[in-house]
Amino acid sequence: MTETGKTLVETRKATIASPEKPFDFEVGATLEHVELAYETYGELNAAGDNAVYVCHALTGSAHAAFYNSPEDKVAGWWDGLIGPGKALDPDRYFIVCANLLGSCYGSTGPSSVNPKTGRPYGMDFPAVTTRDMAKSQRRLLEKLGVKRLRLVIGGSLGGMLTWQWLVDYPEFVEAAMPIAGTVQGSPWMIGLNEVARQAIFNDPAWQGGNYEGKGPEAGLALARMIAMITYRSDRQFWQRFARDRVHPEPEQELAFDNWFQVESYLHYQGQKLVRRFDARTYVYLTEAMDLHDVARGYGSLNDALARIQSDVLVVGIDSDMLYFPHELQDTVQRLRHLGRKVDYAEIHSIYGHDAFLIEYEQLNRLVRDFLERRR
Amino acid sequence: MTETGKTLVETRKATIASPEKPFDFEVGATLEHVELAYETYGELNAAGDNAVYVCHALTGSAHAAFYNSPEDKVAGWWDGLIGPGKALDPDRYFIVCANLLGSCYGSTGPSSVNPKTGRPYGMDFPAVTTRDMAKSQRRLLEKLGVKRLRLVIGGSLGGMLTWQWLVDYPEFVEAAMPIAGTVQGSPWMIGLNEVARQAIFNDPAWQGGNYEGKGPEAGLALARMIAMITYRSDRQFWQRFARDRVHPEPEQELAFDNWFQVESYLHYQGQKLVRRFDARTYVYLTEAMDLHDVARGYGSLNDALARIQSDVLVVGIDSDMLYFPHELQDTVQRLRHLGRKVDYAEIHSIYGHDAFLIEYEQLNRLVRDFLERRR
Repeated sequence: MTETGKTLVETRKATIASPEKPFDFEVGATLEHVELAYETYGELNAAGDNAVYVCHALTGSAHAAFYNSPEDKVAGWWDGLIGPGKALDPDRYFIVCANLLGSCYGSTGPSSVNPKTGRPYGMDFPAVTTRDMAKSQRRLLEKLGVKRLRLVIGGSLGGMLTWQWLVDYPEFVEAAMPIAGTVQGSPWMIGLNEVARQAIFNDPAWQGGNYEGKGPEAGLALARMIAMITYRSDRQFWQRFARDRVHPEPEQELAFDNWFQVESYLHYQGQKLVRRFDARTYVYLTEAMDLHDVARGYGSLNDALARIQSDVLVVGIDSDMLYFPHELQDTVQRLRHLGRKVDYAEIHSIYGHDAFLIEYEQLNRLVRDFLERRR
Repeated sequence: MTETGKTLVETRKATIASPEKPFDFEVGATLEHVELAYETYGELNAAGDNAVYVCHALTGSAHAAFYNSPEDKVAGWWDGLIGPGKALDPDRYFIVCANLLGSCYGSTGPSSVNPKTGRPYGMDFPAVTTRDMAKSQRRLLEKLGVKRLRLVIGGSLGGMLTWQWLVDYPEFVEAAMPIAGTVQGSPWMIGLNEVARQAIFNDPAWQGGNYEGKGPEAGLALARMIAMITYRSDRQFWQRFARDRVHPEPEQELAFDNWFQVESYLHYQGQKLVRRFDARTYVYLTEAMDLHDVARGYGSLNDALARIQSDVLVVGIDSDMLYFPHELQDTVQRLRHLGRKVDYAEIHSIYGHDAFLIEYEQLNRLVRDFLERRR
């Protein structure tokens, strides 16, 4: 705790691949230098079995809770769920969150420097899959001494990754809560990811991914604007923006350059992402979402799901326009038919997909009840 | 009828503004030369009161039915609803469809040549509103001798325009069927229109709208790709594309350039629009959708709706991701409270918003029943 009352946490780095122990990607490539940036909250117990692994979403980072510096105005991205007295309580659990393999917040990815060339990998970086991500995280957890995960949890891409964990490491995971994330990338999501990528590729500054410096800022901003719409809902847009204009004066009513507030908001969100994110990572991680299919390598989807040995609480969001509840419910039905321990809960929210970053009262209750029930 | 059995129809042009009778736009500008391209099917009766006005959608044209030439492989865009034995039967009605003011299929718009400069108007063209569109169509109908409209009907932007007709010319319209179109552009739709426009503006070939020749093809294609997703539904994408790849061979499974079928489809649709549409028109007509608000000029939304004297059948689409049924139902409730003659019907479809161009069995039944009930 600092004088300001902010609990500080440090983002650390772990080497999870070396020339002696290279990392094999699912696509077939191998890297000898792979690092993951990660944060931990709480202490691992002697048995090494009180760990919770938190999976972040597309533009997230290892910084899930607390503050990295006393100057930080905003806490980690899931601070509403992680902390003393909250459902994921560091006094009880050893909570780990690593930046995804392929991301740009300290983990090795397409914008990392390729030691062989001294320049960013760019599009020479191997395609990353959710399987690669789970595998890299498994290596990190081994390094940290974790024997078994009490819980794997995440929303959106983090929910998809949670499913991958369940299927690839069934004995390592006691329980899991995939939130607003599917077992396979849907064609709807793939279409939306492709238009976002196309916005980046259309930007002349993209240069085939070989840019250095600023990169395709207009393209990345547009990709984010498209995505932001699908993260919310039409009702939430009505509630927040209605048809309000930036210049409400009557004489500005029909002016082309008098944005509606919703347009201003989307542009603001686009610019905000450009300041903190890398376009190559956006391309790689959306590709990982598209390639996400827990069935790959196991035969059918049911064959893959039959591998699951954990307790699973699937969480949908009733207003989600990106990962629709009916898709999650379909997976729940499959697991039930397979005799697996599965429940379904739905977050009620006007916020759409983003509810997993907003509805903390419901999230805390769901996580707490699920963990309590299992004690 | 030609030897091939195709009924031919000609797209004609009408001058609806001249130096003697200029056209005043809602934004305040005036043009002395305005033409509308239009088609008619059937004959106007002596009383001039058997006319049906058909409003087209964003990228539509005056060519609603039949064939323009014996070589045409595809009939007009609403041929499934217009024709002998169909709900809009030319043997009974005089059916009129004009290309929207501001569009690029023969009507005057931003890509028309400005007689004062000899070059395309570009962004010097006045902002066009649905009010301007209805007014221009009213002038056309006067020229054609129409005294009163038996029906105004249209889907999407055509449905929005139908509402504008109802409010601006209540005594001219006997009955109307706005389909999947709202009384005000919603912030959700505005957001989606803005990202589509931004895709065009980000294209270096846009040149502030002052391009000649090809123009911003990549940007327009991307705008269309974004829109195409919202015209369908996640379930329809699953049904049609699932997770199928262009190259299904296992060794292509993780290749970045091995598109999913849904990506291939979206790119195809983007390229297809580029061959037939103009980017400036896309910008102007999406702005018209954003500016669409029947309340403007009348006080409140209820004040505007209270002007309606026609029978109205509001039609929603249960899977519509762009104009949600709850928005249309809200308008129905308002009209009921105002004591207006209004009914609501819903098209059941997996196709999403595009159902108004696909579900002809339901459309024909709805239009036929509505017209029969009113005889």
